[in-house]
Amino acid sequence: MTAKTQPAPSRRDLLAGALAGTAAATLAAPARAEAPIEWRMVTSWPKNLPGPGVSAERLAARIAAMSGGRLEVHVYAAGELVPALEVFDAVATGTAEIGHTAAFFWQGKIAAAPFFTAVPFGLTPLEHCAWIEAGGGQAIWDELYRPFGVKPFMAGNTGFQMGGWYAKEINGIDDLKGLKIRMPGFGGEVLRRLGATPVSLPPGEILQALQSGVVDATEFLGPFSDIAMGFYKVAPFYYWPGFHEPNGTGEAIVSIEALEALPEDLRAVVAAATAVENATSLAEAEWANGEALGRLVDQHGVQLKRFPDEVLAAARDAAAGVFADFAAKSAENARLWESYAAARTRLGRWSKISGAALLVARDR
Amino acid sequence: MTAKTQPAPSRRDLLAGALAGTAAATLAAPARAEAPIEWRMVTSWPKNLPGPGVSAERLAARIAAMSGGRLEVHVYAAGELVPALEVFDAVATGTAEIGHTAAFFWQGKIAAAPFFTAVPFGLTPLEHCAWIEAGGGQAIWDELYRPFGVKPFMAGNTGFQMGGWYAKEINGIDDLKGLKIRMPGFGGEVLRRLGATPVSLPPGEILQALQSGVVDATEFLGPFSDIAMGFYKVAPFYYWPGFHEPNGTGEAIVSIEALEALPEDLRAVVAAATAVENATSLAEAEWANGEALGRLVDQHGVQLKRFPDEVLAAARDAAAGVFADFAAKSAENARLWESYAAARTRLGRWSKISGAALLVARDR
Repeated sequence: MTAKTQPAPSRRDLLAGALAGTAAATLAAPARAEAPIEWRMVTSWPKNLPGPGVSAERLAARIAAMSGGRLEVHVYAAGELVPALEVFDAVATGTAEIGHTAAFFWQGKIAAAPFFTAVPFGLTPLEHCAWIEAGGGQAIWDELYRPFGVKPFMAGNTGFQMGGWYAKEINGIDDLKGLKIRMPGFGGEVLRRLGATPVSLPPGEILQALQSGVVDATEFLGPFSDIAMGFYKVAPFYYWPGFHEPNGTGEAIVSIEALEALPEDLRAVVAAATAVENATSLAEAEWANGEALGRLVDQHGVQLKRFPDEVLAAARDAAAGVFADFAAKSAENARLWESYAAARTRLGRWSKISGAALLVARDR
Repeated sequence: MTAKTQPAPSRRDLLAGALAGTAAATLAAPARAEAPIEWRMVTSWPKNLPGPGVSAERLAARIAAMSGGRLEVHVYAAGELVPALEVFDAVATGTAEIGHTAAFFWQGKIAAAPFFTAVPFGLTPLEHCAWIEAGGGQAIWDELYRPFGVKPFMAGNTGFQMGGWYAKEINGIDDLKGLKIRMPGFGGEVLRRLGATPVSLPPGEILQALQSGVVDATEFLGPFSDIAMGFYKVAPFYYWPGFHEPNGTGEAIVSIEALEALPEDLRAVVAAATAVENATSLAEAEWANGEALGRLVDQHGVQLKRFPDEVLAAARDAAAGVFADFAAKSAENARLWESYAAARTRLGRWSKISGAALLVARDR
């Protein structure tokens, strides 16, 4: 065999190069009869927010690159075209053709929506992808969004969360009682049932509230995002595992009308571009969280603490109660919960003797 | 907001539909000036082998769909154009433009190749993706293959493996001594250092060898593949965790010359199609392994057994010795090992307090 010496471009180089070289490439590409299709992408993120904001930009660039410029996607940060929490409505009503956001924002409209982001003691990132892609999750998600003319795709993942930053140690369930803890959604409801007071605060106000004692603790995301927020400066104890949100799926929502107006190959391009972004963002989140965790402990003296078994067991039982109440509210809720809980049982049995067991054995 | 009632196609529907509808879609697609580019894909798998063989077919279909038929990929099963273990040479010499295979087959040519599939006590699937995509793994992989004119992409994953099928219980390290165990590569070398005798057998001969006592135990893949092989009929003990191969990355290898001859948009399509297949196959493997594990235990009475701590600790120490010897052999090996080991430390610290801890707390 002859050894050759061409440079080998990376997958990312190929995508970036394709984007940059769109004009030049038309020499080799087929003749273009028409002007590019233009889509507006509204997002729930500040411009280029590490993690989700970067995912939105990359998704748009990837669609342009893979379509040879036939489909151009213009990205709007939160507030530029519509506010962060009006992304769903904007796509549903045709103000934008595509949105990049997260399902749990739509809980007021679709009660089951948080299951497509993360729920307490729910599926891990890998399990969530298995449920959506192979276990019937996508069909349920599609059905929930279809009445609004919207098609959802997984299109980002910030990975596991940490359990949160605490000013004082938690040695048992009694230490949670009366604490004011920043935690939204189902996780907040779990804490409420344990005797704590869940508090809602936008990201920009959390640090100040933690510093002044308005809250005693806060969760946010994983180490990569948390280190940038500066919580380690005011709360020394960083708890794990993040039982309230063991996953961080982001979504691309696409107008079904706009999707069906595309030629078949561009529909496939849009679907594939979301899948690539979903996988890439999760890989990057894992890498960045590992690095930031090291810095927090080694450079900033953060104390990693595991929640006591008593707290984890009580939280797990409280979560079971929260989901039983949720499922009892409607047939739609019950159907979602049946699928989700069955997936958790099936995948969990395998996850525990494969990945979890290997990690323990590897690290002993 | 107006509720709409259009059907919401799934991501898979979109890709399948795009493929089937290529002809019809040309009405809406740009005018095509030239005939399609045709690629040959050689593979190391029997036609449509569950898992890897299906991945190869889907990858080819996805490239055709996303390119609107401009790039057609003809898939050849192992032996149709070249034998299973000549796929790398076929792509390197231009017999085929693309191959679907697994890196560990090329250990004789590139000593570090198994690190791009799986190694004992190595990275989990999610960690492996993080190292390749974000931690410098892709650049090292590219450099190793570049002298052969070949560019590698992750393009499939069969997930975690199980530890294997044993005719008798393993209660300590002494029970391994003298056992003949079917296990290839670095894993086999670990077993050899523990006093067992590693045996190489092609898949089609394993069951008979296990039945007749030619081997006392065998590993193969995860529950989904193992159940089809029928090992449960002759060896009642199914051991976990699969410390010898905690990952199952498959690769697409592409001729750099063929890749660079493509227009920019089709290069991006090829790169994205491999990434989609990588994520999809892993999601499906997790789902299928969970289901098959349930059937093995509930319907076939298989006894799941955890390797004793003593065995896991001895195997981990033996693996460390195997890798130290590997790294000492060349500067190229040392550089690979430095990157891989650093990634394992960084990602492992995070994996253990995130995913592993959640799985334990969830299941208590």
